[in-house]
Amino acid sequence: MNAPAPPPVRDGLTAVALGGGHGLYNTLTALRYLTPQVTAVVTVADDGGSSGRLRRELGRTPPGDLRMALAALLSAPAALDELRATDPSSAERRATWAAILQHRFGGSGALAGHPVGNLLLSGVDEYTGDVVAALDAVVDLFGIDGRVLPMATEPLVIEADVTGLEEDPRMSRVIRGQVAVATTPGVVRRVRLTPAAPVACPDAVAAIGAADVVTLGPGSWFSSVIPHVLVPEQLAALTRTRARKILFVNLAAEPGETTGFSVERHLHVLSAHAGALQIDDVVVDAASVPAGREREHLERAARLFGAQLRSADLAGDGLHVHDPVKTAVTLDRLLEE
Amino acid sequence: MNAPAPPPVRDGLTAVALGGGHGLYNTLTALRYLTPQVTAVVTVADDGGSSGRLRRELGRTPPGDLRMALAALLSAPAALDELRATDPSSAERRATWAAILQHRFGGSGALAGHPVGNLLLSGVDEYTGDVVAALDAVVDLFGIDGRVLPMATEPLVIEADVTGLEEDPRMSRVIRGQVAVATTPGVVRRVRLTPAAPVACPDAVAAIGAADVVTLGPGSWFSSVIPHVLVPEQLAALTRTRARKILFVNLAAEPGETTGFSVERHLHVLSAHAGALQIDDVVVDAASVPAGREREHLERAARLFGAQLRSADLAGDGLHVHDPVKTAVTLDRLLEE
Repeated sequence: MNAPAPPPVRDGLTAVALGGGHGLYNTLTALRYLTPQVTAVVTVADDGGSSGRLRRELGRTPPGDLRMALAALLSAPAALDELRATDPSSAERRATWAAILQHRFGGSGALAGHPVGNLLLSGVDEYTGDVVAALDAVVDLFGIDGRVLPMATEPLVIEADVTGLEEDPRMSRVIRGQVAVATTPGVVRRVRLTPAAPVACPDAVAAIGAADVVTLGPGSWFSSVIPHVLVPEQLAALTRTRARKILFVNLAAEPGETTGFSVERHLHVLSAHAGALQIDDVVVDAASVPAGREREHLERAARLFGAQLRSADLAGDGLHVHDPVKTAVTLDRLLEE
Repeated sequence: MNAPAPPPVRDGLTAVALGGGHGLYNTLTALRYLTPQVTAVVTVADDGGSSGRLRRELGRTPPGDLRMALAALLSAPAALDELRATDPSSAERRATWAAILQHRFGGSGALAGHPVGNLLLSGVDEYTGDVVAALDAVVDLFGIDGRVLPMATEPLVIEADVTGLEEDPRMSRVIRGQVAVATTPGVVRRVRLTPAAPVACPDAVAAIGAADVVTLGPGSWFSSVIPHVLVPEQLAALTRTRARKILFVNLAAEPGETTGFSVERHLHVLSAHAGALQIDDVVVDAASVPAGREREHLERAARLFGAQLRSADLAGDGLHVHDPVKTAVTLDRLLEE
């Protein structure tokens, strides 16, 4: 079971993956085994690193999570294998371009640390004045199957109520910005977006409505996953869609924003932000499912979303990272039911 | 004669254009009417603007003139018209990408003034560690016909002996750097490259050897045209090739490096740098050909290269800029002989 065979393509399946960062990268890689019709819907609240520098400099959507989603779809093994069967050199070129988009400038100058893809996407975005048009242009240029969309058409700011920063443990402080929230030594209680009710990306709303399967997570819980239910039209689309809705819970708590969080607590905090959102499946790693009474608590937490608790072997070789093939196999089994 | 029809494609013709900057952009646009098999060989001594910033920061080939050549071949009207006949939306996308490559970041931050194409090319160059591989990757990505090559595989520095900067008009000073040479208030007498005998790009040497027609100029005479005869292997290739060799002289003197230069003087200074290089045709704008004795002087200057003096209506609408269609018509007539 350590190296399962990836599942075959399911003809006509359309999938939407909500998330950001490395978690979304892995989910996109997994979904691409099942179908080339994958739409990524990506958080746009990053204010750190290259993305933070670019959003401050250009005043436009932070490109980092969008670039990672583009690179995931561009170099997904399923996509490369399909291409390799008919045109091996084209598959190699595609893999090289994915690596170039991810390549960070070296040195110690003005460009140091910027991934090439962030600069390209920012340039197209500045030129077109429309981040969705910019993403579609890049998708077209590289011959990427599927689409990458932002969860909102304007850059967002994450703001959190955090306790544990004061002498009085009940005292809560407001922490602003994704980096500050992700690294707070306190306990994140609640997050909000600024603007508070951002306009969703219309094409993302439409894609959710038309999808057969929608995934949420894994990923940085407060900064990449929960923001997706804080965009009112997107939450409404998630509520309305007839797609199979599948939540992937992180394999482990993340130092910083979810230090010490159990799986159950991940579900409780998501539920506290998601209103009456119903989900079909809550998928957790088999290793994180406790026995006995604790398992019952977990099943009860899944029922907050009306969801069935599913456990599967999902862990990859890396630290607390989902394995894309195992994730694809799990998705395939759920869709088979 | 103000809007002549462009000439038809000449089947199988292979062309090489040597130069840099806007002059090369126009020659490439002109040659593309005659053939899709155009190789640009581009100066790599720029130290100003975005190129200067990037070469200082990354220590690699300045990308600006290379980017302009890529954009010229990408959006040449002949290429777009051919594409438009079968796939109009693809032609529009191509034109948009050429505009994006040329688009300079706005604002006042670390990216301000960098054309998107300079950052993309620099990123691919840094990733591959090979500027020729980087150029080929970009050519392939955008589906550009032809190739763009550097005249040397390492960044070069231009150095000039300049008079008129001292009280004593015979005193000469050494001025270093393309910007300094291009804007000197003195009189440029001679230019050199550092390193003094740079290694030519092997593919450029091969392209010159295999070409049916090779053009040199127009362009900034000391910083974009003359450098091409200062690369020993490239000069040897120009001497050896059986291609028709055509020199385009600038329509007018450029403020700075060729202030007050006559057509004749352009030929004399090129000859002083070019050893025994033979050229077939020296093409000058009809408006800059004097009558009587002076025309004889000009013909004698052309004979420094064993060349015939050709005059044609070449002026475009812009200031002192060759018109690509008129240039293409002139090239077509020369090749018809």
